[in-house]
Amino acid sequence: MSVPDVVDPGPNWPLDEVVSALREARHRWRVSRQRPQDVGGRELPSPHAVAHIVEALCGALFPMRLGPPDLRQESEDYYVGHTLDAAMSALLHQVRLELRYAANYLRSGPDFEPGQPEAIVRAFAFALPAVRVLLDRDVEAAYRGDPAARSVDEVVLCYPGVMAIIHHRLAHLLHGLGVPLLARIVAELAHSRTGIDIHPGAQIGAGFFIDHGTGVVIGETAVIGERVRLYQAVTLGAKSFPCDAEGALHKGLPRHPIIEDEVVIYAGATLLGRITIGRASSIGGNVWLTHSVPPGSLVTQARSRQEALNLVAER
Amino acid sequence: MSVPDVVDPGPNWPLDEVVSALREARHRWRVSRQRPQDVGGRELPSPHAVAHIVEALCGALFPMRLGPPDLRQESEDYYVGHTLDAAMSALLHQVRLELRYAANYLRSGPDFEPGQPEAIVRAFAFALPAVRVLLDRDVEAAYRGDPAARSVDEVVLCYPGVMAIIHHRLAHLLHGLGVPLLARIVAELAHSRTGIDIHPGAQIGAGFFIDHGTGVVIGETAVIGERVRLYQAVTLGAKSFPCDAEGALHKGLPRHPIIEDEVVIYAGATLLGRITIGRASSIGGNVWLTHSVPPGSLVTQARSRQEALNLVAER
Amino acid sequence: MSVPDVVDPGPNWPLDEVVSALREARHRWRVSRQRPQDVGGRELPSPHAVAHIVEALCGALFPMRLGPPDLRQESEDYYVGHTLDAAMSALLHQVRLELRYAANYLRSGPDFEPGQPEAIVRAFAFALPAVRVLLDRDVEAAYRGDPAARSVDEVVLCYPGVMAIIHHRLAHLLHGLGVPLLARIVAELAHSRTGIDIHPGAQIGAGFFIDHGTGVVIGETAVIGERVRLYQAVTLGAKSFPCDAEGALHKGLPRHPIIEDEVVIYAGATLLGRITIGRASSIGGNVWLTHSVPPGSLVTQARSRQEALNLVAER
Amino acid sequence: MSVPDVVDPGPNWPLDEVVSALREARHRWRVSRQRPQDVGGRELPSPHAVAHIVEALCGALFPMRLGPPDLRQESEDYYVGHTLDAAMSALLHQVRLELRYAANYLRSGPDFEPGQPEAIVRAFAFALPAVRVLLDRDVEAAYRGDPAARSVDEVVLCYPGVMAIIHHRLAHLLHGLGVPLLARIVAELAHSRTGIDIHPGAQIGAGFFIDHGTGVVIGETAVIGERVRLYQAVTLGAKSFPCDAEGALHKGLPRHPIIEDEVVIYAGATLLGRITIGRASSIGGNVWLTHSVPPGSLVTQARSRQEALNLVAER
Amino acid sequence: MSVPDVVDPGPNWPLDEVVSALREARHRWRVSRQRPQDVGGRELPSPHAVAHIVEALCGALFPMRLGPPDLRQESEDYYVGHTLDAAMSALLHQVRLELRYAANYLRSGPDFEPGQPEAIVRAFAFALPAVRVLLDRDVEAAYRGDPAARSVDEVVLCYPGVMAIIHHRLAHLLHGLGVPLLARIVAELAHSRTGIDIHPGAQIGAGFFIDHGTGVVIGETAVIGERVRLYQAVTLGAKSFPCDAEGALHKGLPRHPIIEDEVVIYAGATLLGRITIGRASSIGGNVWLTHSVPPGSLVTQARSRQEALNLVAER
Amino acid sequence: MSVPDVVDPGPNWPLDEVVSALREARHRWRVSRQRPQDVGGRELPSPHAVAHIVEALCGALFPMRLGPPDLRQESEDYYVGHTLDAAMSALLHQVRLELRYAANYLRSGPDFEPGQPEAIVRAFAFALPAVRVLLDRDVEAAYRGDPAARSVDEVVLCYPGVMAIIHHRLAHLLHGLGVPLLARIVAELAHSRTGIDIHPGAQIGAGFFIDHGTGVVIGETAVIGERVRLYQAVTLGAKSFPCDAEGALHKGLPRHPIIEDEVVIYAGATLLGRITIGRASSIGGNVWLTHSVPPGSLVTQARSRQEALNLVAER
Repeated sequence: MSVPDVVDPGPNWPLDEVVSALREARHRWRVSRQRPQDVGGRELPSPHAVAHIVEALCGALFPMRLGPPDLRQESEDYYVGHTLDAAMSALLHQVRLELRYAANYLRSGPDFEPGQPEAIVRAFAFALPAVRVLLDRDVEAAYRGDPAARSVDEVVLCYPGVMAIIHHRLAHLLHGLGVPLLARIVAELAHSRTGIDIHPGAQIGAGFFIDHGTGVVIGETAVIGERVRLYQAVTLGAKSFPCDAEGALHKGLPRHPIIEDEVVIYAGATLLGRITIGRASSIGGNVWLTHSVPPGSLVTQARSRQEALNLVAER
Repeated sequence: MSVPDVVDPGPNWPLDEVVSALREARHRWRVSRQRPQDVGGRELPSPHAVAHIVEALCGALFPMRLGPPDLRQESEDYYVGHTLDAAMSALLHQVRLELRYAANYLRSGPDFEPGQPEAIVRAFAFALPAVRVLLDRDVEAAYRGDPAARSVDEVVLCYPGVMAIIHHRLAHLLHGLGVPLLARIVAELAHSRTGIDIHPGAQIGAGFFIDHGTGVVIGETAVIGERVRLYQAVTLGAKSFPCDAEGALHKGLPRHPIIEDEVVIYAGATLLGRITIGRASSIGGNVWLTHSVPPGSLVTQARSRQEALNLVAER
Repeated sequence: MSVPDVVDPGPNWPLDEVVSALREARHRWRVSRQRPQDVGGRELPSPHAVAHIVEALCGALFPMRLGPPDLRQESEDYYVGHTLDAAMSALLHQVRLELRYAANYLRSGPDFEPGQPEAIVRAFAFALPAVRVLLDRDVEAAYRGDPAARSVDEVVLCYPGVMAIIHHRLAHLLHGLGVPLLARIVAELAHSRTGIDIHPGAQIGAGFFIDHGTGVVIGETAVIGERVRLYQAVTLGAKSFPCDAEGALHKGLPRHPIIEDEVVIYAGATLLGRITIGRASSIGGNVWLTHSVPPGSLVTQARSRQEALNLVAER
Repeated sequence: MSVPDVVDPGPNWPLDEVVSALREARHRWRVSRQRPQDVGGRELPSPHAVAHIVEALCGALFPMRLGPPDLRQESEDYYVGHTLDAAMSALLHQVRLELRYAANYLRSGPDFEPGQPEAIVRAFAFALPAVRVLLDRDVEAAYRGDPAARSVDEVVLCYPGVMAIIHHRLAHLLHGLGVPLLARIVAELAHSRTGIDIHPGAQIGAGFFIDHGTGVVIGETAVIGERVRLYQAVTLGAKSFPCDAEGALHKGLPRHPIIEDEVVIYAGATLLGRITIGRASSIGGNVWLTHSVPPGSLVTQARSRQEALNLVAER
Repeated sequence: MSVPDVVDPGPNWPLDEVVSALREARHRWRVSRQRPQDVGGRELPSPHAVAHIVEALCGALFPMRLGPPDLRQESEDYYVGHTLDAAMSALLHQVRLELRYAANYLRSGPDFEPGQPEAIVRAFAFALPAVRVLLDRDVEAAYRGDPAARSVDEVVLCYPGVMAIIHHRLAHLLHGLGVPLLARIVAELAHSRTGIDIHPGAQIGAGFFIDHGTGVVIGETAVIGERVRLYQAVTLGAKSFPCDAEGALHKGLPRHPIIEDEVVIYAGATLLGRITIGRASSIGGNVWLTHSVPPGSLVTQARSRQEALNLVAER
Repeated sequence: MSVPDVVDPGPNWPLDEVVSALREARHRWRVSRQRPQDVGGRELPSPHAVAHIVEALCGALFPMRLGPPDLRQESEDYYVGHTLDAAMSALLHQVRLELRYAANYLRSGPDFEPGQPEAIVRAFAFALPAVRVLLDRDVEAAYRGDPAARSVDEVVLCYPGVMAIIHHRLAHLLHGLGVPLLARIVAELAHSRTGIDIHPGAQIGAGFFIDHGTGVVIGETAVIGERVRLYQAVTLGAKSFPCDAEGALHKGLPRHPIIEDEVVIYAGATLLGRITIGRASSIGGNVWLTHSVPPGSLVTQARSRQEALNLVAER
């Protein structure tokens, strides 16, 4: 027939073969990992669902700044109550998924009791007002720490360091309540959005501020005091190299730095191992530090290094 | 009754208590900051709304490349006109919010005149064609600067450095027109998406290109000439340490580098303070530089440093 | 009339003038680049469309972990088949756009044969099961490489390094099949989301893992063996400086490092040029390396450097 | 060039000509109706916005039945408060649009006072609890009136007659408060969804129920008592024919039926003119009635009519 | 302060009072109906969820015609399997809600057994292929019954009568499986969309077609044979008037017409009571019929009626 | 294991069996209708796509009233041009689908020429300004015809009769251009939304108005003059009964009424067959008319009928 073929015939590819091969790949993987075959539903929490919960919590914590644009103060409580109720119901579902997953698939995963998911969510909800108080101090610190900031509101609205600490305080709470996977998902949301990577286990005191932030990494057992300030690309890591390649041994043991109150750490500094940075010390940019320093220290790279440049004019 | 309990009872948590505690936390914060209680609507611009405006502007500036996928050249003007009209109306609303906020809440915030928001938006709109011309030169520079780029279109479509400079030129325009909070929101959109953090106040000449880009930080008073090229993790920062901890004093004063025309700065270099990098200089990777260099300089880390490695074979 | 003016009159700006000036800017640019005026439709692939395709492929590759939250194992094949079919049809359209664009606008762009787009998509689809097998090994490596990881599922769900390698393996496949622009778009999606920037051309063996990841850059001709592990801010770059400013000459030539099996490279290390890092070597944090090292090397910064700090207590 | 033309060239139609001709058509219409040319923004309320407001009000009036599916009774008040607040703000905007439109364009449209829109919205909000009480009686009537109904909840959930009376009670309220265009938009929403067309001006007592409903029309000045029940395709209309073609003269005058308490009107009955149907009367299906009947009447079509059929077996 | 008040203060209405009054109204209603106060979650199925399920089922039954526009026959099974799986999971949740509701709130509602919801959904799924076969015969009948129809595909795509019978066959299935509320919701979806109101309990044989359809009402105990054709505004109702006002007594008893095979009923005809219309009869437009007629009858309104018009030329 | 089973196992139903049975049902249907098996993509236009096109056209025809709520007159042309361009591209795709479908599957379907789809879309676009002029007259008629209408704007915004005639004039245009299936889809969109069912083939003169509208049916060959007014439930149908059951024979022949200028037809009137209603006649409510009447006729039901009621007071 002379009909012009105006409609695309498609790639005409052997879909069935690819589907079969993918099934076979999944099958082999499941066998190799001793996973059950072909039964059961979703076993894991959903990052997408967690993202919605965190967005709702941001609104509930700072309704006039991170809530809906047309909110009025007169109806803040209604917004907060309605939003929290939905968010806690959604969180409860995710908590159950994680606990069940841990019980079924993790060697270390304990069984869990009926009522435990509800207890976790209740404890989480009760802690939110204290989180808000802590965050107010962080916001204040961000405002004071950046000479370019013109108001605390601006800081809440658009500073990545503030976004990161909001996420961290929620993630740390979840981590402490026994749902580390949910905590990790929350942390990675902030990581993706801000380039700031804080392990949910890190303990961070009030009045914490990270400026710029891209590339910051803070490890699981780091302990940070009050009113600490960090700049971009600072690492508070474990000294896993070169002395020991068996990192697994360190797991759970304190292996990241302790940063005492009022320390400032400038961009690109790398602090490794269970060292202590004494109160009110300043660590200069790009410094590489693997030992403790006493309170009030000023640490910079040796001047010689700054002069160790090859400078050739008029190439 | 023997009804199976198929429906989830929910966490059964004392919502009212948490809502009350959060209200109390907001109240204390408002008292402490002398904010009004329980009256008034939204006081702040909306990052979400700004994101939509910027997306529309990207389309209006580069309709066939960043506009809707099915656009035809024949109808470009219709698309541009319709999109701009909606975007400028939306921008006007955000400008009003920022000006009103500044007048009400910032000590430094002046009152504003009737007609001022409209004047800002008009000036912004009139400047857009010149922005497009500048961006064409940036795109050209990106295409020439990266041997892997195969066309200028590819560069517009997917180079993060190009996305960052589009955002910056819009943010810088807003900054100069007296709406620094909107400018900052635009800058943070690019920062979140690309990892490139350029303060809206930075002055950047034509033909600017950042390759890879993650971790770049460019400060408020930086001045960058024409045809400058930067790589990832370059910092053009203020030398706030260790000589002076009162950063607030520096505010507004020139405190970031001046980069003259045709300078190239390689990955990880850190340039601090109001130094001048002379025309056509090259600054090597990871260099830490706090003093000016004359035109045509080649600056690398001292060779000795590169050799200062502990190398142990056959561990 | 005494009607209160409750409705906003808008900015009242000369829309027509701005539209005209933007048209004129586009016109001049097209003339300068010898582009056709005022005819034709979309010439370029759509990053937005590619993002949807990649999201679908993630689900088809890992249905129970990255697919829809309510999927059951019983219906995995249905989901995989339906999702793949739609994704391959959408990919076919994008492949056609790229091939046609290359033929029309790139000097180096060859004409393409009828049936070539379909052949590319078929080859891509057939390769997916092998990609899944490779990715299973990457996931396994991530799980073993991070002492904090509690399960392979957690790793798939939220590790940015895993997200980056999933994207890379798809991008590398497209790159090899002759659609480099689509490949680049896929790579930039991962870059924006994770801060990890891997050129689609890079060859990466099985069992690859990047921890934390922000700031990692891997160049086009890099060759990475099996079971290699990288940390954040590692650069595998070209040594384009200072000896040679004509980067364009290098295009296509091998110019990035070769990393042999089981190498570990710690955070912030910079490896430049066509050097070879011998099997099972460890490269320390912040190391700057521009020459090859034999198998089993341990490379760290000279101890002296670590001690080259100015330390001033009690400032 | 031998490139296969894989991408659609589009219809290649003279868009500019059609746009011009449409502009000319609008221009002529505006001239003919003495409307202003080329200035000003939206002059009219938005049916789309009104639809959202009504949907919110349905949820606020019956939170557990027409509100969000996961609502819990514990948080009803939060949901109601948050939803009402947003809905009333949105309604305020629509009320302003209507009042301004009436003042500018309707000969009969009076100027309006500052504060009048706010007063209308306040009055509307205050009336909502009484509307809920009335609707509870309507729902009860629907439940009792339909032997097939199994619960009052089912009736709220899916009876079109209930949906129609919810809309009507809201529309009637708006009509009485001086925003007849908004009222009409609400009425037409119900009409489109249910096929039941009730003019917002109609006065309807408590315990009203329409079964099936498609084709029911109730005119502007109809007055309906308590506990009245109607079936599908009932018309309570004006007797505008044949005696008088100048319908405009009747405007505002009572011209539709008065239906007293506890009347039942069966499907397809047509009642025209300012007649009175006495208390507890029953009007049979398809009856055509243009005169009043006393209380307790039973009106059916004459038996003769039912027998006036041509019946031919074995055709 | 002289700041122009550019931002709307809102209606400033006593939200709290209205929320309280609405709470009080709900409370009184719950007391009056002996409902529990302030505890528990959603008790009722969601029409919105049911609408999604039905839309999915339409696609699964007629994939190439009512499924996604870009579906290919090669992947029909994948689409059908994936769509059915999700739809049946969603249906299971709604079935549980209805059974639990019935057990808790309906006097007549029996307790239900564990496993009963799953059994209902399984039975429903198994019946779908037979439903498709039946619908093919309905579609064929529609195509043959309307001289204007050009193909069976057109009939599936846009005939409201076909849409109504698809919904009815699904609703009837649910009704028979013991979830009458879900069945009713499905029926009302069709009613709202097409103006055709068929009670889920009605028994309808194969090859059924309704043309135009607006205003058709078919009652709960109607029994319709094969190859029956109806036009708009036909009523198959109960003869509840005038002899008996206690409609509740009739509940469940056969009270609607029996229509034998191959009957045609023209627009506007009203058939009331448990009458039987014999095989292959034709009932004329607007006929009002309350007694049985033998097979092969032709029933029209008496000719006298058609002539009983007042005709006045030249008014 | 003692893990609480918190996650739903799903209905556990044999999905594969149902998918197979549905496949078998499709297979049998395709065999019976001699349709191709298992090859090819979408063959039919998409009602969903057509709905979007019609919505865009409504906005392009009446930009300030049916276009986006924030449109300003200054940018009307931009909106119209952009919207039309996208709508015509989308329409072109649908036209191609219909023409190809007709060529492949309809016995009566002719082959079509290359360029024919483009020619159809161009002709359609060129006709739009004339459609707008016609619609302005319809709107004017609606405004004058309903004493309750307060402005022409209100009429455009919310009268179902106006919505129906907008759809009809577009559908009639498509019908005349040789795409009757698209035309039918447009007609059914209006039917579903308004309950008014106008066949796309009907010829309707300027100044047409339908009030209320639910239940109106206008057949394919109806011819309606200028300034005609109809009320709800009017039928202009074919006299297919009882004389002739072979409706197919009538296809294409004139078989519906001719209504001359300025006729008014009141609610529920049924006019059947190729009769002519003379100029300026009035046809009363519920009249059943199967013969022509001269100009100026007034036709009502015989007075005797109105009196033929059984009236029983004090039951």
